[in-house]
Amino acid sequence: MDYDTFFDDAVRALQAEKRYRVFADLERIAGRFPVALWRREGDTREITVWCSNDYLGMGQHPSVIGAMCEAAQRMGAGAGGTRNISGTNHPLVELEAELADLHGKEAALIFTSGYISNEAAISTIAKLLPDCLILSDQLNHASMIHGVRSSGVAKQVWRHNDLGHLEDLLKAAGRERAKLVVFESVYSMDGDVAPIEAIADLADKYNAFTYIDEVHAVGMYGPRGAGICERDGVMDRIDVIEGTLAKGFGVMGGYVTGKAAVVDSVRSYAPGFIFTTALPPGLCAAATASIRHLKQSSVEREAHQRQSARTKAVLKARGLPVMPSETHIVPLLVGNPDLCKQATDILLEKHGIYIQPINYPTVPRGTERLRITPTPFHHDGLIDHLAEALVDVWQTLGLPFSTPQPMADDTVVRPQIFRAAGG
Amino acid sequence: MDYDTFFDDAVRALQAEKRYRVFADLERIAGRFPVALWRREGDTREITVWCSNDYLGMGQHPSVIGAMCEAAQRMGAGAGGTRNISGTNHPLVELEAELADLHGKEAALIFTSGYISNEAAISTIAKLLPDCLILSDQLNHASMIHGVRSSGVAKQVWRHNDLGHLEDLLKAAGRERAKLVVFESVYSMDGDVAPIEAIADLADKYNAFTYIDEVHAVGMYGPRGAGICERDGVMDRIDVIEGTLAKGFGVMGGYVTGKAAVVDSVRSYAPGFIFTTALPPGLCAAATASIRHLKQSSVEREAHQRQSARTKAVLKARGLPVMPSETHIVPLLVGNPDLCKQATDILLEKHGIYIQPINYPTVPRGTERLRITPTPFHHDGLIDHLAEALVDVWQTLGLPFSTPQPMADDTVVRPQIFRAAGG
Repeated sequence: MDYDTFFDDAVRALQAEKRYRVFADLERIAGRFPVALWRREGDTREITVWCSNDYLGMGQHPSVIGAMCEAAQRMGAGAGGTRNISGTNHPLVELEAELADLHGKEAALIFTSGYISNEAAISTIAKLLPDCLILSDQLNHASMIHGVRSSGVAKQVWRHNDLGHLEDLLKAAGRERAKLVVFESVYSMDGDVAPIEAIADLADKYNAFTYIDEVHAVGMYGPRGAGICERDGVMDRIDVIEGTLAKGFGVMGGYVTGKAAVVDSVRSYAPGFIFTTALPPGLCAAATASIRHLKQSSVEREAHQRQSARTKAVLKARGLPVMPSETHIVPLLVGNPDLCKQATDILLEKHGIYIQPINYPTVPRGTERLRITPTPFHHDGLIDHLAEALVDVWQTLGLPFSTPQPMADDTVVRPQIFRAAGG
Repeated sequence: MDYDTFFDDAVRALQAEKRYRVFADLERIAGRFPVALWRREGDTREITVWCSNDYLGMGQHPSVIGAMCEAAQRMGAGAGGTRNISGTNHPLVELEAELADLHGKEAALIFTSGYISNEAAISTIAKLLPDCLILSDQLNHASMIHGVRSSGVAKQVWRHNDLGHLEDLLKAAGRERAKLVVFESVYSMDGDVAPIEAIADLADKYNAFTYIDEVHAVGMYGPRGAGICERDGVMDRIDVIEGTLAKGFGVMGGYVTGKAAVVDSVRSYAPGFIFTTALPPGLCAAATASIRHLKQSSVEREAHQRQSARTKAVLKARGLPVMPSETHIVPLLVGNPDLCKQATDILLEKHGIYIQPINYPTVPRGTERLRITPTPFHHDGLIDHLAEALVDVWQTLGLPFSTPQPMADDTVVRPQIFRAAGG
């Protein structure tokens, strides 16, 4: 075994398959979001970020940044230990109480990321329940799949959002067997939403325990920003609600909420929780400020939905192939990994627009896409600029346009040349 | 299956086994470390933390807190995305360069915690290498064991720090088979150190790839704070050096460093890295400030070693059963989980000293202990106060004293009553 050659070859294989990823070196500018500085080879340019998961721009909210700095200055930069060994800081205790209240649950538990919250909580719950069967939606996130695998228990995958298939599997397992149903509310690559109430009905009927990932919904849906479960009035029907502090809330970290005994079990048994340094007081204070703000302010949610809807309408009006999406996520079909990468290169180089290409394995081959995430700060002028740039890219690369559609509301449709598929 | 009853019982079982953990709600005070506020049932008291992993107190260093706030105010509270999708912020790029330089490696990669850095890097490297055999030290940390398990490859455990046993296993595997040797430099519960150079010699002899966890050493050992490998002059002999930003450097996050192709492989293939929001610019800037300070200042390291040595000497002089330790960690044997918990309760309630009991499964049964971590800020007066308090606790609980030993240096030994074992 020649280790050096082996790893050199591993990297070259990725490059040959066009799967090698280059990370854009960005410097966001608080107060000017979504503008950022892009550094490359000693050069620095201003660009507009159109693929951020800071969906509401809360990462630059003065009360969020202020809370972070106040806590850091008063209590220090880090937590200083694991939760059990001196790391449980008071802002973390307050944040957990805030999250339990947000989701109407008895307790909450913070992790350093949404990934580890899913991995640790799913695997721990499934391992604890005797002879547990996990029923997992086909399109669940990598972190949930990792949790399912780490548990080592039996699992069955139900076809994405297919209630009939889920019911078949639940019925076959029987009422007595422990069954853990894991799914997401908003699927982030297509922007579609799970039929949560119907899944909860099935879980009741067949006595299953339910676990939902709301990372692409918390902050953004529901009257207090608790997510799709809150919007649909079914928060109390789901046993564990998992979320993130890193997207709608604009900071960092993941969490689960549920009954006290369930959360306490995860807290006590999950190695990925026990042996990790606690979240610093500054991050916790920032997240709490963000949650509290979004609990009582719907301005951001309304602007978010409005600008997302407008983005979809403007792009569709230009004949750009916007994929169906029930949410704030705007997927634009390219259908080829090379062209997807070329499209984003032109957007960045020529138009100063940063959108990361989404290729296999994140999405199925043949559905490669641009995943556009408008925020309240992507004003109408930016949307128009995006549309102009995309039309230019589509023409330059000969990508297929679809039939233009009338624009919603008061948006003015400007004349535009539409080209045939492959033209 | 009655889920509610099941989880209630799971928590009650922990309580019955005396393994139920209650986290102390602490508020550290920047500028007054190791003093913190302890909240309980509406009451708030000042206590002294003696079990922090903020080993050098860098979490309260003005340049570290200042860097965090400056970056947050300029760039926002969060990163806004995964590394690939808009989350790679400029302070993170700078931090990775700083870490590569610190360890004399080509590249570095940041994770949200040391736990996930071990889990992700070990499992990814082992999965990539064809027919890999992992050779793992018996006392490796839970995160390393998790990484070994996640990889799904063959593994063998060698007796802790036993070079003969490691050589037997290497020899049996043969030169051609891919072999990943994973171990730590400082084992945190006993404070002992691996024979790194001898392990590197064996790895060379039998053609093995080496991975070391330096989380309890970075910042604290070596002329620039790169850890035990730097102190021993063997940084270039180890393929991957893993470390943390959360202990000696006082902030949060974990990392690996190594050859560019190895780091690039982990970056490209590890799900726990790919699908996680990047570390916020404020945390990265704080960590970089801490590393840069400790690269050129040895004042903290010297004070750390001095106060740790003094703590050991003073406790030994009082006949307290300090366990052998080659490092800054001061383990004090209790040998019983109930008494260990009682000892820490008395320390906190009566003496305002916070030390978390360390019980099974963190340490073997019968070796339950107090794990004391003096920092540069635990001045002589605090050490004397700790010794007085511990003697009181030992007498109150009838814990065994050992024969008192002469004190090192100029420390004055005050008369003290020594009691027989069990007395």
